Amino acid sequence: MGLTKDLRIALWQCESRTGDVPGNMARLDAALEESARRSVDLLVTPEMVVSGYSLDAEAARHLADPPGGAIAEQVRSMARHHRVGVLYGCAERGREGLVYNAIRCVDRSGTPVATHHKTHLFGDLDRGMVTPGATVPPVVDVGGWRLGLLTCYEVEFPELVRSLAVRGADAVCVPTANMIEYDAVQDVLLRARALENQVFVAYANYCGREGDLVYGGRSEIVAPTGEVRVEAGREPDLVVADLDRSTLARSRLRYPYLADRRPDLYRRGWL
Amino acid sequence: MGLTKDLRIALWQCESRTGDVPGNMARLDAALEESARRSVDLLVTPEMVVSGYSLDAEAARHLADPPGGAIAEQVRSMARHHRVGVLYGCAERGREGLVYNAIRCVDRSGTPVATHHKTHLFGDLDRGMVTPGATVPPVVDVGGWRLGLLTCYEVEFPELVRSLAVRGADAVCVPTANMIEYDAVQDVLLRARALENQVFVAYANYCGREGDLVYGGRSEIVAPTGEVRVEAGREPDLVVADLDRSTLARSRLRYPYLADRRPDLYRRGWL
Repeated sequence: MGLTKDLRIALWQCESRTGDVPGNMARLDAALEESARRSVDLLVTPEMVVSGYSLDAEAARHLADPPGGAIAEQVRSMARHHRVGVLYGCAERGREGLVYNAIRCVDRSGTPVATHHKTHLFGDLDRGMVTPGATVPPVVDVGGWRLGLLTCYEVEFPELVRSLAVRGADAVCVPTANMIEYDAVQDVLLRARALENQVFVAYANYCGREGDLVYGGRSEIVAPTGEVRVEAGREPDLVVADLDRSTLARSRLRYPYLADRRPDLYRRGWL
Repeated sequence: MGLTKDLRIALWQCESRTGDVPGNMARLDAALEESARRSVDLLVTPEMVVSGYSLDAEAARHLADPPGGAIAEQVRSMARHHRVGVLYGCAERGREGLVYNAIRCVDRSGTPVATHHKTHLFGDLDRGMVTPGATVPPVVDVGGWRLGLLTCYEVEFPELVRSLAVRGADAVCVPTANMIEYDAVQDVLLRARALENQVFVAYANYCGREGDLVYGGRSEIVAPTGEVRVEAGREPDLVVADLDRSTLARSRLRYPYLADRRPDLYRRGWL
């Protein structure tokens, strides 16, 4: 039964290597190879893993890949070769010349499924580097599952995960670059997003240092019960967990939040 | 400086005594007396503390107090006598004859500040007992602080706490009747509501048994950093904590969620 198939997700927790695109692409290929060995359906990488995260505007523009560009083609080829889907982060140059902090989802046949431009920028680094996205975060079909896609800081906003859940997401996948001083995201917010929206949350973070930044690792997959299903430590790792429909179904009976919402009231100017 | 004054809140964690209105009013008076001794500004009680929570529709109608009714007058008099504000829960009979699950806020001079009818009902018990409210949860001024008021299950919905924060709430006060099997509210959701909205959250629960229900206690006040400032155990208690402006100001610099929201996008059908 297609509807009851588990989805095996891998979170690739690695160090951010600024500007080394060939090296980062080789590391991504190795992570996909390991994912294939472990029968993973979808690999999730950290934010902007192709270029590294800590860039200025000039570097981001220089390293940005256009839609369907060389990076896009190379990742499609890797996914097809390893038969593993991938959600990866990179700088993207839009048609109008602006640079975005993008995530791109490619399925195991190498077909591009969706791109999302980060809409909620974090602090001076993000704002100095890219233009904020202006479109709704997508919900896509991967392996028979409905996946919502967000980037880093966006998952901290309840509005965005709710928007994905209301559009039918069963899981929310989040490439991120979360600094160690913001461990509260893993301690508090991710568990709440999963529980209040009755979705799995898969959060793939960097570890180690990049310039002045120290990343917190602790990439994790949280179940819709709010329980952490798998969590990495502070070191590089590739952690794997299966999302299963029976947990989702049982939890949604216990926590009927989506059914008990009152959009009639919210539309009357509550937000 | 009025703006920097702390607000001292007490959470009255008690057992629910079904239908014993005179006994419950006497207990409330004693809790206000203890609050006065401890220089409390506002006492928060559990949900429907005047009548007990586990009622059927007939009992709720029978015990319901109309706006400005005998219960309302008695609580105003107690608050004025002890010079302590109070947010308390009771069944309320609306002008059109419908019965609501209400919370009422009275300031230390005995002046009624606001009433709120629970809009998000929980399970068969709530639905069998009262009509859902149809108005926006209020933000009120108490002791120089802006307080948002919610009832029980409502705080589990991110939309509602966000609505209060956007309207300037510095703290959200929540009379509740949360069963022990829903400890995830205290473990996960309350901390997230405080952190993501940069508000204090004050949650006053029952403990002990009422019929088939077993309440979880663990009444708590959470700081806008997501840290628990004070928490009761599983037994009756009256716990007190001060809400301070310096924590609020420091935390809002560190977590600028409200400033970083993008209502321009949310208005375009995200929710």
